[in-house]
Amino acid sequence: MTTKDIPKKNISNEEIRFTADVHSNLKRNPNFKKLSQDDILYFQSILPSNALTIESDSNQEELMAYNVDWLRIHRGKSKLVVKPKTTAQVSNIVKYCNEKKLAIVPQGGNTGLVGGSTPIFDEIIISTKNLNQIREFDPISSTLICDSGCILEILDDYLAERGHMMPLDIGSKGSCHIGGNVATNAGGVRYVRYGSLHGTILGLEVVLPDGTILDNLSTLRKDNTGYDIKQLFIGSEGTLGIITGVSILASRRHKAISVAVLGLNSFENVQNAFITSKEMLTEILSAFEFWDDKSLKMVKTHLDQSAKFPLDEYPFYALIETGGSNKDHDEEKLSEFLETVMEKGIVKNGIIAQDNTQMKSLWSIREGIPDAGMKAGSAYFYDISIPIPVMYKIVEDVISKLKNAGLYGKPVIDVHGFGHVGDGNLHMSIITESYSPKIINLVESCINEWTEKYKGSLSAEHGIGLMKSKILENSKPKVMVDIMRKMKYIFDPNGIMNPYKFFPYQKYEELKV
Amino acid sequence: MTTKDIPKKNISNEEIRFTADVHSNLKRNPNFKKLSQDDILYFQSILPSNALTIESDSNQEELMAYNVDWLRIHRGKSKLVVKPKTTAQVSNIVKYCNEKKLAIVPQGGNTGLVGGSTPIFDEIIISTKNLNQIREFDPISSTLICDSGCILEILDDYLAERGHMMPLDIGSKGSCHIGGNVATNAGGVRYVRYGSLHGTILGLEVVLPDGTILDNLSTLRKDNTGYDIKQLFIGSEGTLGIITGVSILASRRHKAISVAVLGLNSFENVQNAFITSKEMLTEILSAFEFWDDKSLKMVKTHLDQSAKFPLDEYPFYALIETGGSNKDHDEEKLSEFLETVMEKGIVKNGIIAQDNTQMKSLWSIREGIPDAGMKAGSAYFYDISIPIPVMYKIVEDVISKLKNAGLYGKPVIDVHGFGHVGDGNLHMSIITESYSPKIINLVESCINEWTEKYKGSLSAEHGIGLMKSKILENSKPKVMVDIMRKMKYIFDPNGIMNPYKFFPYQKYEELKV
Repeated sequence: MTTKDIPKKNISNEEIRFTADVHSNLKRNPNFKKLSQDDILYFQSILPSNALTIESDSNQEELMAYNVDWLRIHRGKSKLVVKPKTTAQVSNIVKYCNEKKLAIVPQGGNTGLVGGSTPIFDEIIISTKNLNQIREFDPISSTLICDSGCILEILDDYLAERGHMMPLDIGSKGSCHIGGNVATNAGGVRYVRYGSLHGTILGLEVVLPDGTILDNLSTLRKDNTGYDIKQLFIGSEGTLGIITGVSILASRRHKAISVAVLGLNSFENVQNAFITSKEMLTEILSAFEFWDDKSLKMVKTHLDQSAKFPLDEYPFYALIETGGSNKDHDEEKLSEFLETVMEKGIVKNGIIAQDNTQMKSLWSIREGIPDAGMKAGSAYFYDISIPIPVMYKIVEDVISKLKNAGLYGKPVIDVHGFGHVGDGNLHMSIITESYSPKIINLVESCINEWTEKYKGSLSAEHGIGLMKSKILENSKPKVMVDIMRKMKYIFDPNGIMNPYKFFPYQKYEELKV
Repeated sequence: MTTKDIPKKNISNEEIRFTADVHSNLKRNPNFKKLSQDDILYFQSILPSNALTIESDSNQEELMAYNVDWLRIHRGKSKLVVKPKTTAQVSNIVKYCNEKKLAIVPQGGNTGLVGGSTPIFDEIIISTKNLNQIREFDPISSTLICDSGCILEILDDYLAERGHMMPLDIGSKGSCHIGGNVATNAGGVRYVRYGSLHGTILGLEVVLPDGTILDNLSTLRKDNTGYDIKQLFIGSEGTLGIITGVSILASRRHKAISVAVLGLNSFENVQNAFITSKEMLTEILSAFEFWDDKSLKMVKTHLDQSAKFPLDEYPFYALIETGGSNKDHDEEKLSEFLETVMEKGIVKNGIIAQDNTQMKSLWSIREGIPDAGMKAGSAYFYDISIPIPVMYKIVEDVISKLKNAGLYGKPVIDVHGFGHVGDGNLHMSIITESYSPKIINLVESCINEWTEKYKGSLSAEHGIGLMKSKILENSKPKVMVDIMRKMKYIFDPNGIMNPYKFFPYQKYEELKV
């Protein structure tokens, strides 16, 4: 269970990879005002000085950390970061920006993977990092209310002391903000059990693009009075407003947790093991993850994990986590499951973690794959929803097409498949020596073919951001995209909220209802 | 687990209770066209004759079943019921209605409790009863796609044969349609475990008010491409479109189910038993229901249940259901739980059902309360979300206020509290000798005080419909209601879809964006 810190310092220009290419089709929207000294004076009048980062000779590095995304693909040129501490401050900032037509990008932990949380041009960055108070927790109804800038892991630790846990868990939990999780509809490794944030978010407080505070911080599990407006903000990536408060249904923390890792000879058997786990571990199954042999090798090479992995080499590995209220019962179920899948020849070998340290070590293999990829070369990550039976066929097809084009080996170093079997959510990383449009085009056209054929999704859990804004129009029927445009226009007629993302800028003028 | 058949025949005018009063403030929207012979000829040209019920001397009773709601409070005057068999037929009907400005009311199983599924004036009824095909089921990903007119219990039986179950279960499952469940965001008795339809609905097919078919029948568990538009239709009660197809995530069916019933001396102990059950039965707890002694007496008197209840008299009863993959484990957990709560004095007596017949018999007590209420007198049902600690205080306060006003005993026969403890969802029934605005006003002002004070909801799971359209404006902040109005206008500029519901008719002209 690793944590990912956002790069705060020492990002050199050389490390930023292909900003120019990604941004080349975009032009700054001339309707947006440029930041002036008067604007800065205004923000200084409503915020304490430590809530502002204003461009100067001495703070280029500090500003860079907000302008560059985690993947170091995108770099904006914002000259101002505001870090409000209250919802009222957010409201005042946004109201002013809307009146002046100053564009805004809301930013949480800046751990997104699609360039949604960094500016493209000179948008003002509104960071939620100082909105970090836990407001209340009710252990009877298991409801937590907190500011949107609370870090996921801190919330989970807080709940742990109260016998509860957050209903989501993702690799970046050490730095991502709950508001960002909601804004991007984060999925993660325990989704197979606790499901979507659309089900567990009970209420939101949102500052709308005109500065109005929408207070819907309900803790009610059931409330059928009117359309469920808060659902629109879940996954809207800051394009409809800035989430400032979150009410979420926590889960009881498990008294017993077990982790097993399996070695398997084929992806078909990964699938068979998953089906059997659903049948035999039903109510205690918390995670079913997989990775291929090349992913493991990469983690062993680039992270300090080689000594810790207890299985021999197999083409595929699966990690199963169970959580329940009775350790003996859970262990009995898990042992019976392992016996069954090994007797049937589905699993070649499997071990149950002996202690907490080994559990963490096994998880760190799975969660270390993106980090290892970033160290192995220029890494590109894909995030695909597709029916489970064909999940890994995409990886095989991409490799075969790269081979045919003479690109595999060099400049493409390797292609890895891993991800959330239980959700039909494949992650694929392409590690190259350096960025090449030729490789990306080949890979993406291959992925498009598969998702089109099997009605999959080109963004299972990472969102649209800037990087995938071209796919939105082809991912959903025109009638749905038209409705989305209308929504955007209703909430944000000036288009100041996270511009250039989601809907390509060029068509913004068409949004009018 | 009773089934409720919609009243199909023999509804006399005397049985309809207070139609006039509920409708007295409403006037037919003069913008709507009246049904003409030409319209009927058109519908006859696009639909087979058995898909139409047109008013005639001989079919008054048949038409009445569609015009009157389950509670027999609301009666419309529709002269035409259309029963399309395909989405294309629904689309053609709606397109025509929109062009001609003929108002529509979509109707599923007509089991709603707020007058949302019956016409007010002469709206054309579009029944989903012939949209009843199961389209596909994938046992690997546990996803079911079906027409919206499929009956909930039939879907659950279909899934039972395939090792799965529907993630919701409500008293009216024998006649309610899954499309109606989605349109009203139905909750029910297993919500505490499987959560909201906002989390389990994966995709919808909807005919929009202009006849356009919105095809979003995805079976993907994760898909973060764009705003999650389908969420808007969940709980929109047919005011934004007609749901024709549903994709839903099924759950694994439990190999073992246990039911226990508890006798308790106070509501505080009901709450304590619930807290302990969450702690000790965590992952296998499927339902935690309660009812008071008067509810039990009413069921014993009016339904044939008296011989079947195994406990002596206590002020409160709770029903616990567990479901899991290992019968021995579950029984051990449940026995330990019972020992604990009885040792601590939380529960005075408790028994575990010995067989399937006794389980059903215990459930039929809880699920029989509304039916018994309908037989006991003129029954009014309330559906309140409120923090668990104050749930039953509302019932006590209502009784005390009725006593002070000299109304308790006669004309109010009794007041009962029951419902879903785990969701903080109280149902309260007021049984009277006959309808009286004085009683209703007293009861409702009392409920309003409590929900306002504790940020509760006046409609936890029943929706708004006609009956609660007055509360919407006070239930949510103005900014949210304004957004709802704009949504309605975007989807349905002519206002033909289930008019007079949700938003009071008088203000429809203000909807324009």
